[in-house]
Amino acid sequence: MRKPHRAEAPRPSRRGAKAGRVAVLSTGTELLRGRSTDTNLASIARALETIGLEVSYHATAPDDLDRLVEEIRLASARAEIVILTGGLGPTEDDFTRRAAAEAYGRELVFRPSAWNAIRSRFRRFRIPMAAINRRQAFLPRGARILPNPNGSAPGFVVESAGRFFFALPGPPREMVPMLQRQVLPRLAAAIGGKPRFKLWEARVFGMPEGTVDEIVRHVVARRPGASYGLTVSGGTVNITLRVERGSPLPMVRALRRKLGLFLVGPKSLEETVGDLLLRRGKTIALAESCTGGLISHKLTNVAGISAALLEACVCYSNRSKISRLGVPAPTIRRHGAVSAEVAAAMAEGAARTAGADVGVAVTGIAGPSGGSKKKPVGLAWHAVHYRGRTRAERGVFPGDRMAIKERAAHFALDLVRRALSE
Amino acid sequence: MRKPHRAEAPRPSRRGAKAGRVAVLSTGTELLRGRSTDTNLASIARALETIGLEVSYHATAPDDLDRLVEEIRLASARAEIVILTGGLGPTEDDFTRRAAAEAYGRELVFRPSAWNAIRSRFRRFRIPMAAINRRQAFLPRGARILPNPNGSAPGFVVESAGRFFFALPGPPREMVPMLQRQVLPRLAAAIGGKPRFKLWEARVFGMPEGTVDEIVRHVVARRPGASYGLTVSGGTVNITLRVERGSPLPMVRALRRKLGLFLVGPKSLEETVGDLLLRRGKTIALAESCTGGLISHKLTNVAGISAALLEACVCYSNRSKISRLGVPAPTIRRHGAVSAEVAAAMAEGAARTAGADVGVAVTGIAGPSGGSKKKPVGLAWHAVHYRGRTRAERGVFPGDRMAIKERAAHFALDLVRRALSE
Repeated sequence: MRKPHRAEAPRPSRRGAKAGRVAVLSTGTELLRGRSTDTNLASIARALETIGLEVSYHATAPDDLDRLVEEIRLASARAEIVILTGGLGPTEDDFTRRAAAEAYGRELVFRPSAWNAIRSRFRRFRIPMAAINRRQAFLPRGARILPNPNGSAPGFVVESAGRFFFALPGPPREMVPMLQRQVLPRLAAAIGGKPRFKLWEARVFGMPEGTVDEIVRHVVARRPGASYGLTVSGGTVNITLRVERGSPLPMVRALRRKLGLFLVGPKSLEETVGDLLLRRGKTIALAESCTGGLISHKLTNVAGISAALLEACVCYSNRSKISRLGVPAPTIRRHGAVSAEVAAAMAEGAARTAGADVGVAVTGIAGPSGGSKKKPVGLAWHAVHYRGRTRAERGVFPGDRMAIKERAAHFALDLVRRALSE
Repeated sequence: MRKPHRAEAPRPSRRGAKAGRVAVLSTGTELLRGRSTDTNLASIARALETIGLEVSYHATAPDDLDRLVEEIRLASARAEIVILTGGLGPTEDDFTRRAAAEAYGRELVFRPSAWNAIRSRFRRFRIPMAAINRRQAFLPRGARILPNPNGSAPGFVVESAGRFFFALPGPPREMVPMLQRQVLPRLAAAIGGKPRFKLWEARVFGMPEGTVDEIVRHVVARRPGASYGLTVSGGTVNITLRVERGSPLPMVRALRRKLGLFLVGPKSLEETVGDLLLRRGKTIALAESCTGGLISHKLTNVAGISAALLEACVCYSNRSKISRLGVPAPTIRRHGAVSAEVAAAMAEGAARTAGADVGVAVTGIAGPSGGSKKKPVGLAWHAVHYRGRTRAERGVFPGDRMAIKERAAHFALDLVRRALSE
């Protein structure tokens, strides 16, 4: 820092797309101002994976011509394949066409076929067209037009000596179809051959990241060409195994053995629980206090769950726990609303009053207020009732209100998963 | 493309933080692989804005030591303030500490105070600690430790000649508090003086983006130094007004007049509804069908809402609508579960059975199945019952299951907001 290092300019590669390096550029001042979140990088990464390519570089550029030219040059020095999203609209701060022309030293030329496609789209939807839309028909010389069935801005690709520059629209519902139909087939043909790697993904719940890491590291250690990554979210540890040759199966078997019931599987907790319920033909009812409806929200994101989920009660008040779920008032008085006993009574009450096979309940303190020394913010009791047995488990979760809700919801879903897996 | 341009290495600035250029580096191979989405850039951008700073550069780096060193050097050549997130965990691919040490030519040294903080955290939550956690206590020489009350990884800042390098944890619930409490005060003190611009933000619900755009454009038009941006999320249009001199107030007054009741205000719909309920001392009960608990989840993210929210029922089945909410069976038979009549009966039933001042209900078809020609996927009826009156409104929402749940939840919250604002 005292003497900032002079950054080394990466040397432009002379190799073609077969070298397989991909740079993604997201454009839009609103991204750098935090007014929207970029989901295009993730969509592009996951789509490329299916043809065995990975993103090596990613940068976000503002709507500024000079900066955009600089970022395009930097990206094409770093990668043989550059995919840019955004800045193809008709307005004055949509600079992608000009920036690409400048970065690659090609002039902008009017393309009648692009212009016809834009005009016929406006006619089809009977939208009055502004004169500025004509801008969208000017593309760098030699560019190939990528049709956009879901928007007015055509994309384009500049290809030369096996290197690619793709310009795609920013809105995901326009970008993703163009990526799937126009970009992937071109790239798959250009790189040829089989994917360079295989992936296996799984989630683990209830085990700290450090412990999961030790187990996975040990399993991956002596396999050449194998690597892994871990991410953590709401108490779930996500594992991605990657092998460059051979099959990941021997490692997967070893992991299954060592992780045991902690291994949730490839899907999210709610999808896993949803699958288990539907496969076993069981119904469920929820009783939520501190999670405030989050378990129900997560579970109802699973399509088809209405066949299993009978009802959910968010019973914030004691009165509601008594009247809706039949929790005995003395149990609340004696043990407090946040206790193993009340959680168990809530789970039993949810199953009984709804006539469901499984009842699950959470009662806790999400904060920021309401905590005490004996019952601190973050404390939650979770219970599951199934086949005449009720089990209650305690968790103490760090973080703010949202984080505590998330962790407690996952804990409860995992309790159901384990009960149904036995 | 034929001759890829040699990228120009940006010249390192010799100016300090007062020059105000900020580079954000997101790290994590999982981001480049599409395994998670980066929300940190947006959080950082919005936090910096409050002290009058803007993000000039953003890049995403993989968990690779050499690449990370390269990106840190590039970022510190481009900006006086570098904020990096991620890579502070205990595992082998958490390279931030080593990369920062290498990029700035400083060795890593063991910091007993950081080590004590890590150990006491593990003790407090009774988590067994892996030996590798000791790695987190090694920081570049001269770095100042940024305590992390929400996680095991301490952050750090390297400051020299008025230039800053901040290393913050990747998980948002650890990163954001550190940003607010540790980063902003330091930077505000370093840059001194007044912010370079003023912002005013507001949300609008129930008006199409194009219409909002016309209104705001007209208001902003002849004000020198004023600009605006719009983003859309879940049917809400977010307006950001920015003025470089003077006050935004005359424009704000004009917007308030033109947007009327469509203007929600600066806060989210759920916070606005929570505030209204608490300020007026009113209680509420919810009856959700297709939103599956999402309204309740959103409302219970508002701290203190337990004083207003009595209970929520997610009544997926008809049986549950009848038994929990007292919806008359003939009403369901005659009009179908997705109808104005059932929505109204649900809202009235929710208020009556819970003894609440306000009852709100949603019933609809979130898909992907269950739609018909007359009642397509995306159709939802929303109702609010308040002061003896019940009002039902219909919406038809595009998108997938999640998008429909979100739009319907917002619609219902807005219905409550309008009822309480009259």
